[in-house]
Amino acid sequence: MTTDAQPLPRTAPEDKSMDDLVALCKRRGFVYPASEIYGGLRGFWDYGPLGTQLKNNIRDWWWKCMVECPPLGPDGEPVSIVGLDSSIIQNPKTWEHSGHVGGFNDPLIDCTESKKRYRADHLLIYLIREGDLNFGVSTVAADEAQAEDIRESLEKTGDPPQGFQDKLFVKRLKQYKGGGYVTFKLGTTATPEELAITFSPEGTKQGTLTEPRTFNLMLDTYPGPIRDEENKAYLRPETAQGIFLNFKNVLDTMRVKVPFGIAQIGKSFRNEVTPRNFIFRSREFEQMEMEFFCPPDESQKWYAFWRDERYKWWLSLGVSEENLILRDHDDDELAHYSSACVDVEYKYPFTAPGFGELEGVAHRGCYDLTAHSKGGDNKDSNTKLDYFDQELQVRLQNEGVDKETIKERSRYVPHVIEPASGLTRAVLVLLCEAFTPTPDRDGSKYIMSFKPKFAPVKAGIFPLVNKDGMPEVAQKLYNELRTKHMVEYDGKQSIGKRYARMDEIGTPFCFTIDGQTLEDQTVTVRDRDTLAQERIALDQVSAWLDAKLAE
Amino acid sequence: MTTDAQPLPRTAPEDKSMDDLVALCKRRGFVYPASEIYGGLRGFWDYGPLGTQLKNNIRDWWWKCMVECPPLGPDGEPVSIVGLDSSIIQNPKTWEHSGHVGGFNDPLIDCTESKKRYRADHLLIYLIREGDLNFGVSTVAADEAQAEDIRESLEKTGDPPQGFQDKLFVKRLKQYKGGGYVTFKLGTTATPEELAITFSPEGTKQGTLTEPRTFNLMLDTYPGPIRDEENKAYLRPETAQGIFLNFKNVLDTMRVKVPFGIAQIGKSFRNEVTPRNFIFRSREFEQMEMEFFCPPDESQKWYAFWRDERYKWWLSLGVSEENLILRDHDDDELAHYSSACVDVEYKYPFTAPGFGELEGVAHRGCYDLTAHSKGGDNKDSNTKLDYFDQELQVRLQNEGVDKETIKERSRYVPHVIEPASGLTRAVLVLLCEAFTPTPDRDGSKYIMSFKPKFAPVKAGIFPLVNKDGMPEVAQKLYNELRTKHMVEYDGKQSIGKRYARMDEIGTPFCFTIDGQTLEDQTVTVRDRDTLAQERIALDQVSAWLDAKLAE
Repeated sequence: MTTDAQPLPRTAPEDKSMDDLVALCKRRGFVYPASEIYGGLRGFWDYGPLGTQLKNNIRDWWWKCMVECPPLGPDGEPVSIVGLDSSIIQNPKTWEHSGHVGGFNDPLIDCTESKKRYRADHLLIYLIREGDLNFGVSTVAADEAQAEDIRESLEKTGDPPQGFQDKLFVKRLKQYKGGGYVTFKLGTTATPEELAITFSPEGTKQGTLTEPRTFNLMLDTYPGPIRDEENKAYLRPETAQGIFLNFKNVLDTMRVKVPFGIAQIGKSFRNEVTPRNFIFRSREFEQMEMEFFCPPDESQKWYAFWRDERYKWWLSLGVSEENLILRDHDDDELAHYSSACVDVEYKYPFTAPGFGELEGVAHRGCYDLTAHSKGGDNKDSNTKLDYFDQELQVRLQNEGVDKETIKERSRYVPHVIEPASGLTRAVLVLLCEAFTPTPDRDGSKYIMSFKPKFAPVKAGIFPLVNKDGMPEVAQKLYNELRTKHMVEYDGKQSIGKRYARMDEIGTPFCFTIDGQTLEDQTVTVRDRDTLAQERIALDQVSAWLDAKLAE
Repeated sequence: MTTDAQPLPRTAPEDKSMDDLVALCKRRGFVYPASEIYGGLRGFWDYGPLGTQLKNNIRDWWWKCMVECPPLGPDGEPVSIVGLDSSIIQNPKTWEHSGHVGGFNDPLIDCTESKKRYRADHLLIYLIREGDLNFGVSTVAADEAQAEDIRESLEKTGDPPQGFQDKLFVKRLKQYKGGGYVTFKLGTTATPEELAITFSPEGTKQGTLTEPRTFNLMLDTYPGPIRDEENKAYLRPETAQGIFLNFKNVLDTMRVKVPFGIAQIGKSFRNEVTPRNFIFRSREFEQMEMEFFCPPDESQKWYAFWRDERYKWWLSLGVSEENLILRDHDDDELAHYSSACVDVEYKYPFTAPGFGELEGVAHRGCYDLTAHSKGGDNKDSNTKLDYFDQELQVRLQNEGVDKETIKERSRYVPHVIEPASGLTRAVLVLLCEAFTPTPDRDGSKYIMSFKPKFAPVKAGIFPLVNKDGMPEVAQKLYNELRTKHMVEYDGKQSIGKRYARMDEIGTPFCFTIDGQTLEDQTVTVRDRDTLAQERIALDQVSAWLDAKLAE
């Protein structure tokens, strides 16, 4: 039996229901709420058997592309990158000098009536989503005077004033709902007439918002036997700092020279005020970060290189180009030390038709190495984090440059280009991208159309019926394939039900052993997306599958 | 050029210097102290580029053997195991019901003079190591009356009394130093004459020990905006509980039936009082745990199965049989709910000629699932954690058993066999096992003789000299191999120095392109351990390496 291909129906992100996706993720073992039997814990998720496999597949591909077989650089040679796995808990001085103790704060606003708490810089978006209003509310002003400026500017020009930190959200809002602003006084009661919003679940009562207060996003703990301020440590809010701390160790012990990168995958923690959108913003999450150290005068070249490389990498996961954009940060979005930053953004069902962050590629200058380097403002560090560029020295000598200049220029603090993305966010993107409602198909209500390389289960192996020697042949094929790939044997229920289950967990191929197999040693292979069925030789299945998974 | 094989000199664990190994680990990028530029943080370590690669190789092999391609069970069919990745932070109720809030405590003893703090149940060993005495000091008694009993028993019989929790340490001590006990009164001054020990670094002054006090080993933190007792959560001290919490989720969403296992790899945290012995006992570490759920009356069979399987698995890492033992726990070592437990132990340089823990395979009965199950003592759980065994029901029906008995016997709380090991401890074992001083060899002072499958770098590719077309051929070979394996290209320094570096980082094979390569398209391959060199065809290198790494 062979069947012709039919196209997989495509669904726009805005037409995908997050509720349905979350339900499928639970039902099929991708993602469970953490501690569900104890009522859960807000902002924490557990990855089920299939979610773990999917996450591992993405993790391994990133590691392969970044550490084991990095891309060819602008000069055609493979770039040099090494891996690292630093502790989640580091000496607390780390976070003082990185700026996270002083600066890693969210402005929070409470509603005194509902007792709900909001991130001031998210409130604009938040209110829109909660109340489904067709206007925006900006509450991000530092004080009433600034709020007045914002109001005035919005009323006069339709745009927020220059330097207004919430500009991005206002922009997004315009894109989202076509604009229109209402503002209100902080610390005063917002009446339904003024705002037509409220913070109570019923959506009818009025609420009073407090002034924004700061709240540090780092979770803290006390390693060691003594519990005092001196022994307070933090769970890292990013893996990046562990890399900067080890810059000199790597330089001294590995055969690397600038330019080179250090890459790391691992858990980070942020005490998000409003964890939301499934696993998009959770309090415990996994990151994939790489710090690329380069000579200052080559930094723009490397920034452009990684900007393009990382965009291509996301395409290699099977994400469609129309759902993926590169968005350069405006000057007023940049950190003071950063000269450029670009976000890779994805059209999530909950942001569509807008986009939401997926990866940031930042030009961090020499900010981090300088901050952790011995001397200057840093009296705690025992190590100078700079680099002596021997090749540059030789080049300058050959150019006849004077000794003083050579000495000055050959030792420098490398600049850093940082492609930083979330592994758990990548899982979310592949789940959203693969999620395809198929109401018109027989059997499968949903298909998870993962690119085969990333599918948690690569193939199903079925005997058509559980007799006539078919199970023995199928079992033999299963035993052959399982040593190489994640595959499943299934001999229960009707073949249609077995296909439907494989569609929902995203298994790209199903091999069925039927009556003809026993005669001519061929099996059918069924394609998850096109439903096409063709016959291939039993002894070619393994090689056929290898080839498909290498694509 | 071909060279004959010579045997790698073997070094007994007791002759391996931990100081030298730790220095090599730092020098070659295996393990760095965490936050070294800020003076470090006790009990925390960072894994350098090679340590990370080694750790990943072990991690992937465990996952392959446990989840992707589990072993054949007693019936000849592959056992059923799925993966999981649960949060480090769970709802705090988890740790109340698991017993960790109430019971996961260490008895601590302070020296009032030196201000040092000791785990009472480690002090015996600790003093021996610190002072290098030929007798032991037991300080584990709960009170003075018990201490008196212990003293008496030791004096009369040479053995501690029945049920004495420190029995294991006393046993080890005997093995280690040939016995001989001195005891002293808690809370009194121990004079040098009595003990010939002290807790000061100089080793001369006397110290006063306090009574043991309890100290919880879990690190805590406060997720969410409010910092009060109700919102206190814990960093998991083991990954196992995340598995028990998801037992029902996995059962309901995956196609599994008892017997089956759930496996997980991830970070855990224990606020160890005396982190020591390099990465053997650290405060942040990585675990590889599997919970195997089985019918109560099959549990002994599965216990025996996993006991043997896990021992074999450690051998598959290349650990030699003489350094690896299975040690059954005595009845008085077992937790009250456990009917059997066995440790896989390794002869570490710091325990030799004795052994230290590496993995525990425990029969945990129905303790954990019962503890987290709705009802009974647990008023917090919303889920009953039991299992309806349909196959058993059918079997009992066919046997003509009465309905009431069938109903009673077909629903049960599965028993659990738990093979639990440390990934970071496995790294330590492979580092210790591979570490081979070779003072009599030219070039290499040390060889890290990892089994090729686990070596961080699989091959070095060298042009003999950096001219005459050799670099081009070598680079081409490198570009071919690097898409499949971690390999390094090195064209710098003398060939001897390049070999020596590869020996120290444990690279099993070096391919050298020389003059003859250009004539007959062959390369030399040099074996790290035997120093044998043979020539193989250039176009066979990739297949040759694949075959070696599959061993």
